[in-house]
Amino acid sequence: MIFVAGHKNPDTDAIVSAICYSDFLNNTGAEASPIKLGEPNNEAKFVIDYWKASMPETKTSLPENTDIALVDHNEASQSLDNIQDLNITSIVDHHKFNLQTDTPLEIFARPLGSTATILAGLYNMANFEINKQTAGLMISAIISDTLYFRSPTTTEEDKIMCSKLNEIAQITDLEAYSLEMFNAKSDLGDISAEELVKMDYKEFSFNGKKVGIGVMETTNPNYAINRIDEIQESIEQIKSKDNLDHLVFSVIDILNEKNTTIVSNPEDKKVISEAFSAQEIESNTLDLENRVSRKKQIVPTLEQYFA
Amino acid sequence: MIFVAGHKNPDTDAIVSAICYSDFLNNTGAEASPIKLGEPNNEAKFVIDYWKASMPETKTSLPENTDIALVDHNEASQSLDNIQDLNITSIVDHHKFNLQTDTPLEIFARPLGSTATILAGLYNMANFEINKQTAGLMISAIISDTLYFRSPTTTEEDKIMCSKLNEIAQITDLEAYSLEMFNAKSDLGDISAEELVKMDYKEFSFNGKKVGIGVMETTNPNYAINRIDEIQESIEQIKSKDNLDHLVFSVIDILNEKNTTIVSNPEDKKVISEAFSAQEIESNTLDLENRVSRKKQIVPTLEQYFA
Repeated sequence: MIFVAGHKNPDTDAIVSAICYSDFLNNTGAEASPIKLGEPNNEAKFVIDYWKASMPETKTSLPENTDIALVDHNEASQSLDNIQDLNITSIVDHHKFNLQTDTPLEIFARPLGSTATILAGLYNMANFEINKQTAGLMISAIISDTLYFRSPTTTEEDKIMCSKLNEIAQITDLEAYSLEMFNAKSDLGDISAEELVKMDYKEFSFNGKKVGIGVMETTNPNYAINRIDEIQESIEQIKSKDNLDHLVFSVIDILNEKNTTIVSNPEDKKVISEAFSAQEIESNTLDLENRVSRKKQIVPTLEQYFA
Repeated sequence: MIFVAGHKNPDTDAIVSAICYSDFLNNTGAEASPIKLGEPNNEAKFVIDYWKASMPETKTSLPENTDIALVDHNEASQSLDNIQDLNITSIVDHHKFNLQTDTPLEIFARPLGSTATILAGLYNMANFEINKQTAGLMISAIISDTLYFRSPTTTEEDKIMCSKLNEIAQITDLEAYSLEMFNAKSDLGDISAEELVKMDYKEFSFNGKKVGIGVMETTNPNYAINRIDEIQESIEQIKSKDNLDHLVFSVIDILNEKNTTIVSNPEDKKVISEAFSAQEIESNTLDLENRVSRKKQIVPTLEQYFA
C-alpha cells in the first residue's frame, strides 16, 4: 500500500492532489490511499462536499518503511512527523526543492500554479480517463492555488487545463463557483487568533534569520483587521514559543488583490517597511499593495532583504 | 538560450541526453543547445559517429545567470564549476536526489535504467516526433546504462522503450550493436592508470568517511588486471591528493557479469572483504561476484557498512 500525503495545514490543492494522485496510482495498478496530515481549511471541506468525495483520514505518522508519495510539498518539515523513517516512492509538486534521497525515485515537479495541473497532465500522459468528480476536484485546486487566475503564480497551462477539465466537470459559471469557494474559505467561525495566524503558515530561514509568514486569503479582510489586538498578541506568543526572529501575517483580499500585513512590534515593522517600501496604514498595519502570492511576491523580497 | 549539460566524465547517456533534451526543448519552442563538461569516453564517441550526430562543445562554466538544464545528474559536485551562479530551468535524471533550489523548476526524475528512457517518454507525452538519429542515440544510451539489460538497474520500461525506439532506428541486430559499443568502450589505447581509475568515478560520503569508487565496464577485464601495479600506485596517489579515507576500483566484465575489485592497501581490503564478504582472488584483488551496478549493488552495501 502506498499512502499519498499533502502537506501540513491542508488546503484544497493538498487534499485534492492526495486524492487524485492516489487515484492515478491505482490506475497504474498500484494500491494507493490518500491521507491528510491535519485539519483541512473550510474551502477544502466545501470542495470535498461539493463533489461528494471522501475526506482522507488523518495520519501524522506511519509505520517504519511504509511507502509514501508526497504531493504539493517536498520538504521534510512540511511532511509526516516520521518522514525520515518512511520510503518515499514519488513526489508531485510545484514548490522550490529541498530534498535529499538515498535512492532514485519518481519526481514530477513543474513550476505551475497548482499541483493539480501537473496531475491532470500525468493523466493525459498515461491516457487515463478523468471522471467528472476528479475533474471537478482538480478545477477546484487550480482555482484555489491561483486565486482564480489572479495570483502571479498562474501559468497559461493552468488556464488551459482548467478549461479542458471543465469540458468534463461542466461547471456552468466558474467565476460564481470560485466565489463560493472563497466565501467558504473566509467563513472562519470562532477560530482562535493563534489558529488564524497558523492557518496557512510557513517558516523560512533567511540568511540565518528564522522568519514565520502567515497568510489569510479571504473575501472578508475585515474579519482579521477587526481582531488586530488579539492577532498581535498571538504573533508575540508564537514568536517566543517558536524562537522566531520575525513573524508577519498578511491578510490577502482575494477579490480586490490587496495585501494588508499585520506586525506586532517596531522591529518587524522596520523589516517589512524597508523590504517592501511599504506605507503604514495604521499602527502596525502595513500596505503591501497587490502582493497576493507568498511564494512569488513575499518570500523572494524578504530573501533578498536579508541576504 | 538554454544550455543542456550532462555530468562530468561524460558517458553515452550523459552525451545523448544532452543532445536529445536540447532537441526536445527546441521542439517546445525554446532555444536550446547541448554542451559537455569534459572528454567523453570512447563508447560515447563511437555512438556519436555511428549516428552521424554532432559532438556537443565542451564548457565547464558559463556566464552568470545563464539558463541551464541538467540531464543525467542533479548534484552540484557533478555539474558545471559555477553551477551556483547559473539559472537551472529543468532537470531530467534517474539518480538519487540532492538538490536545493530557490524557485520551483521542471524536474522529471524517474528510477529507470537510463535518462534516455525518461526523455523518450517525454517525447511521447508531448507527441513530438522521434527521428531515426534520435531513436538510435536513445537506444545506445539505454544499452550503455543498462549494460544491454544485464544491470539490475534495468526496468521493464527500458526494455519496452528500447524495442519501440528500434521500430524507428531499425538496428537489425541489437545484441551485435551492443557488443560494438562495449568493444569501443573497452578500447582504451594508452590511457594512464590514473585516467583509468578516474574514467567512471564518483566520490561518496558515508557517515563522514570520504570514499572514492571507480568502475571500469569492459569486455576486456585483463587490460586492467595486467596493469594492477600501476593502478594501485595511482589509487594511493589519488587517495592522498583528494584526502580520501578509502578508494576502490571495480573492473566489471560486462559480458560475463563479473566484478573484480582492486584495492591498494590492507585497510581498504578489510572494508571490501567485510562489507561484501568478498574472497581475495590474489593479493589486493577481490571477487565481488556479479555486482555490476555501482548505484544498486556497491553504494548501498558500503552505505550500510559504514552506518
